[in-house]
Amino acid sequence: MDLKQVAKDTAKVLASYLTYQSVRIVIDQLSETNPPLAVWLSGFSSKGKIQDGEAYIQELLLENQELGFRVVTVREYLAHDVVEFLPEMVRANIQQANMEHRRQYLERVTQLNWSVPSSNPESSIDSEPNLDNLSS
Amino acid sequence: MDLKQVAKDTAKVLASYLTYQSVRIVIDQLSETNPPLAVWLSGFSSKGKIQDGEAYIQELLLENQELGFRVVTVREYLAHDVVEFLPEMVRANIQQANMEHRRQYLERVTQLNWSVPSSNPESSIDSEPNLDNLSS
Repeated sequence: MDLKQVAKDTAKVLASYLTYQSVRIVIDQLSETNPPLAVWLSGFSSKGKIQDGEAYIQELLLENQELGFRVVTVREYLAHDVVEFLPEMVRANIQQANMEHRRQYLERVTQLNWSVPSSNPESSIDSEPNLDNLSS
Repeated sequence: MDLKQVAKDTAKVLASYLTYQSVRIVIDQLSETNPPLAVWLSGFSSKGKIQDGEAYIQELLLENQELGFRVVTVREYLAHDVVEFLPEMVRANIQQANMEHRRQYLERVTQLNWSVPSSNPESSIDSEPNLDNLSS
């Protein structure tokens, strides 16, 4: 497990996602102050280019330098104010999701047990849920 | 700018990306210990379901409970060991990328200046790069 590479890849994905969020914020702002420019930026950004944040910004700077630097500024802001809270949020989300997955699993297992009529002891052994998988 | 919503959305994207990385790690491990199962998990995971990490895990737990809990365990591990370093990495990446964007911009501007023959002082004023945009 190459944790260093996983961390690097994750940071890159995160930077690109923050670029996408910055563009959305700038489009939102423009739709109030300069609707035609909002439409232009929206069209420019919907060509799938935004998947690679840096390539997108590079191209935007060539097409409209002011908007390019505006996206860069908003992204810098998000990198400071949003990223800080992410570790705790992600950990909490994942812990909660995992608890939910385990709860649902236990619910399924319990329902299997309930479906065995208690008056028939012979069949209850066969119909116990197979828990062998859990140990490995 | 609804920063709280941006943070929430970003945390969700990050959790799904960590699910994807966990599945890749489990497939890597399986390809050494149980190649047929690696092929099966690879096929199961390539159906685009992995975009939503929780829905993917839920479905995997129904299909193969052992693999489902294995992915959950790896993801929990990544959430502790990788996520911690992300804020610093993302900030550093974004700062470096922005510096690079500014450097490239200045390079373009300087090239524009160089293209003006110095023996013609009149035209040098016209061909100065338009820096008005930068102020806004």
